Amino acid sequence: MKLANMVGDRFKERPANCLIDSHALMVRGGYIKNVANGIYSQYPAMKRISRKIEAIIREEMDKLDGQEVMFPVVLPGSLWDESGRYESVGSELLRFNDRTGSKMVLGMTHEEAAVQLVREYANSYAKFPFMIYQIQTKFRDEARPRAGLIRVREFTMKDAYSFHTSQEDLEQYYEKQYKAYSRIFARCGIPEVAVVASDSGMMGGSVSHEYMLLTPAGEDSIATCPECGYSANVEAAPAIFDVENDMPLADLELVETPGTGTIEELCEFLKIDAKHTAKAVVYQRNADDSFVVAFIRGDLDINETKLTNAVGCDIHPADIVDDSVLTAGFIGPVGISDKVTVLFDKSLEGIDYLVTGANKTDYHYKGFNVARDCDNPEYVDVAKITEGGICPKCGKHSIELSRGIEVGNIFQLGTKYSKSMGFTYTDENGKEQYPIMGCYGIGVGRMAASICEVRHDDWGPIWPITIAPWQVHLCCLRSDDAAAKAKADEIYDALQKKGIEVIYDDRKVRPGAMFADADLLGVPVRVVVSPRNLEQNAVEISTRDKSIDKEMVPVENTLDRVDEIIAQLTEQINSKVE
Amino acid sequence: MKLANMVGDRFKERPANCLIDSHALMVRGGYIKNVANGIYSQYPAMKRISRKIEAIIREEMDKLDGQEVMFPVVLPGSLWDESGRYESVGSELLRFNDRTGSKMVLGMTHEEAAVQLVREYANSYAKFPFMIYQIQTKFRDEARPRAGLIRVREFTMKDAYSFHTSQEDLEQYYEKQYKAYSRIFARCGIPEVAVVASDSGMMGGSVSHEYMLLTPAGEDSIATCPECGYSANVEAAPAIFDVENDMPLADLELVETPGTGTIEELCEFLKIDAKHTAKAVVYQRNADDSFVVAFIRGDLDINETKLTNAVGCDIHPADIVDDSVLTAGFIGPVGISDKVTVLFDKSLEGIDYLVTGANKTDYHYKGFNVARDCDNPEYVDVAKITEGGICPKCGKHSIELSRGIEVGNIFQLGTKYSKSMGFTYTDENGKEQYPIMGCYGIGVGRMAASICEVRHDDWGPIWPITIAPWQVHLCCLRSDDAAAKAKADEIYDALQKKGIEVIYDDRKVRPGAMFADADLLGVPVRVVVSPRNLEQNAVEISTRDKSIDKEMVPVENTLDRVDEIIAQLTEQINSKVE
Repeated sequence: MKLANMVGDRFKERPANCLIDSHALMVRGGYIKNVANGIYSQYPAMKRISRKIEAIIREEMDKLDGQEVMFPVVLPGSLWDESGRYESVGSELLRFNDRTGSKMVLGMTHEEAAVQLVREYANSYAKFPFMIYQIQTKFRDEARPRAGLIRVREFTMKDAYSFHTSQEDLEQYYEKQYKAYSRIFARCGIPEVAVVASDSGMMGGSVSHEYMLLTPAGEDSIATCPECGYSANVEAAPAIFDVENDMPLADLELVETPGTGTIEELCEFLKIDAKHTAKAVVYQRNADDSFVVAFIRGDLDINETKLTNAVGCDIHPADIVDDSVLTAGFIGPVGISDKVTVLFDKSLEGIDYLVTGANKTDYHYKGFNVARDCDNPEYVDVAKITEGGICPKCGKHSIELSRGIEVGNIFQLGTKYSKSMGFTYTDENGKEQYPIMGCYGIGVGRMAASICEVRHDDWGPIWPITIAPWQVHLCCLRSDDAAAKAKADEIYDALQKKGIEVIYDDRKVRPGAMFADADLLGVPVRVVVSPRNLEQNAVEISTRDKSIDKEMVPVENTLDRVDEIIAQLTEQINSKVE
Repeated sequence: MKLANMVGDRFKERPANCLIDSHALMVRGGYIKNVANGIYSQYPAMKRISRKIEAIIREEMDKLDGQEVMFPVVLPGSLWDESGRYESVGSELLRFNDRTGSKMVLGMTHEEAAVQLVREYANSYAKFPFMIYQIQTKFRDEARPRAGLIRVREFTMKDAYSFHTSQEDLEQYYEKQYKAYSRIFARCGIPEVAVVASDSGMMGGSVSHEYMLLTPAGEDSIATCPECGYSANVEAAPAIFDVENDMPLADLELVETPGTGTIEELCEFLKIDAKHTAKAVVYQRNADDSFVVAFIRGDLDINETKLTNAVGCDIHPADIVDDSVLTAGFIGPVGISDKVTVLFDKSLEGIDYLVTGANKTDYHYKGFNVARDCDNPEYVDVAKITEGGICPKCGKHSIELSRGIEVGNIFQLGTKYSKSMGFTYTDENGKEQYPIMGCYGIGVGRMAASICEVRHDDWGPIWPITIAPWQVHLCCLRSDDAAAKAKADEIYDALQKKGIEVIYDDRKVRPGAMFADADLLGVPVRVVVSPRNLEQNAVEISTRDKSIDKEMVPVENTLDRVDEIIAQLTEQINSKVE
């Protein structure tokens, strides 16, 4: 198509509200338009990228005998009642009533709908295994949408659901999906995506993996061990700490500690190290605002996802408005109100001597010992793993932390949904059994934005040829020159006739403006026709990734050379697909 | 794919709740599954049909220089406030609040989103004309979903929006869309779709057309004139009646008419014809339940859509719970409460003598004359056009009524949205102008269901080859016979290698069950491999439309013959595309 006709503005200035480069470039390049907080429309360039990513995903799913189906965006609340998630999922599940007052939700994931679709069909072992998938709009009422298409409220997602009669069969199939996902990312030009163990969260099930594209712009933290290859989302990485008993066992002793409402103040006052304190971190359950107090070694921090899992429901940092239940700044396990839930992070297990709050303003206890001073203390792993911390796999102090964007996830769901939703089949012995499920998701828009995040320069995205909105960007410099215009038109027609996707810029604009637009569109192959080049009977060909820079190609060889470069760029990507 | 693996049940019994054949067949054939009232999931066969219809639509839109974009399903209420439709549209617009309390809607049409996407971009006459479209999920909170995919709440729709700088340009483009729509329907195998003038309803604008697939199962009524070719939705067809003054002018006279609460009782009592009465039909505005009384000739009926348009807001048939304002059964224009809105259908204009209610139980007026007895009566066209009625175009008593399903619609919107939403461009003289819009919609699922409705027999759908879920249905009778199975497998592989879409039934089931399933899947070409056929070194080929019935084809010619038949069936469809 002609660039002059393409809907969408491109501009030079970085928008003020864009914190990461991909967001800024996709707004500046006319890919997306914000409609509401975390909700975007897609301009033609973005829609083309989406469709290419979808086609790659569809091909890989079909290779795994996936059957494409379609679930509704709007689902009855009663279906989510069956699985229990209507109640258990937080306010990211958008709930509303329809005109008849029936409770409805917007689908943010479709396990319930998948079970509903197949539970009458798959009533015998002979129907298994099978996989169904869809590529469809989803809505998740995120509290903090951000970073353009990376974290949005409405998005297009491929979600697949597999059904099995044994854990072994699920595991075999899961392995296939695991590999298909790696192929999908490689085919989309990001073979470096890392697979990490993850927290299953609200999905249920035990084993799950995330595909992480490592970038400082990512919002997920990943713990990796270069010694043994261990890698996990920090939410799923057990935090292990050495027990260093460098303070001797002592009797519990109430001490006055005026004005020491923070760990720093307390350590300064008592001249002790933070690791000798048991810090209270206070949350409240979303449902009823009841308090949850997690005690953790004073030098460590709470991982909120781990704590949410330990508590078993949605929570938020506490707002202690009066001190009738908790004495803010001086909370401790001894004599704490029995109205609050008390948990101890594993970092406190086995420590002989600690300083902790005395539940009385300006007082702490010295010589606190969890095992001795508390009845049946419940130890949980809710600490953030730390850089240089202990690897849960090889035990060395080798943990490295990095950041990444989650571009896909796969889950072994087990029988959570089949059991709760009464989905059974008859096995070979005539017995009723619950099918075992897996589910597999990829967000299309997030993938596009992530690729932009790791494949761009100061001037724009550098789209991999497999997902680029067009393959060739044809520029006619000086389109007021009749010969140049005629030659460019001819090349445009010839490229199109060959089935090559070409965006053609024949606007009467300065070369600088033309090239700036081309950079923002990030199309892999650029062909420049100009009176000056034509004097040498040549066009100038470059690639967006700079591997080819202003190569002069005889006009009559244009098509062949373009073909060759497209094949090379494609081969570069395919060579990394396993 | 193999039928044995395909997700979805097929069954023999017509489901009780299916009023029309297409609904019953699409449930029985494993195409769709009801999830909630008017909300369906799609099984693989249906999803394949949808994708084929979408591909045809996409091609035709691209031919008109359409640029595919994507709008959100969830839209901010504020955007609909800009156009005024947040208030003006009835409860079919699903409104809800997100977690922050912001008012949101589910997109049932995307004029507002289209304007929002382009109003900064299209700021100069040089950017015009252009067209953008999407194929996306929509939600319309229908009061009475019914007939399977014909009238649902959630559906996939192609909606296109064109933008112009003059009415002439819009009209030219509208003509192109008009033709593209005819091509789309013809390519989908329903060239007989009729175009009729329609009511623009909540879309605004003046000129609009509907594409109607005529079938008794349709819920729309169409008025056509075989004399002059006039055709219109009855909602848009002016109802014209002869003025027959066969009763002489007379004075207004109050008469006691005990127990005559209906027109029938009144005519019986006074021995007059219904056409000599002015009947009151009472509605209430949805917003405040205030009364609207429409008077119409006693032998005619109100068209509710026309009345809604005349009133200018949503209305519903009245529930007169007390007689303080209106005297049910005896309502008349003379002395009626000034709290109600009074309208006169044009059928009453010019009639000298009428009988009408006296707003007093058991009393009517004789000799009523609208022009004489009412101050500035407002005449509106709110009557249903009748079979044998007067054609608005040629004036003959030639109107015929038939039923149809609306499978597409196109609208000339004018400046309704650009004006209300502050969308302007600078014209060639530097003056600010409002762009002129058109919009063009097709529902994908409704189209599939409509095609099924007009292309089926007692045993299942007869899908046109261009949209059929597969091109070939391969049956292996007696798959326990090794030779038959081997030959069928070989043909299956060969067909797939040729790029032919084939569904392969190699289940160990009786031929009757196998053919019943094949009929329900409605695949155009059937190839049957059986031991008996193989004895003659032949396969048996039939078409679902019975144009070829059990043709014995030498095994080695199978592929060529299948190819030939597919080409013929395709050509039959293409020959009707203009």
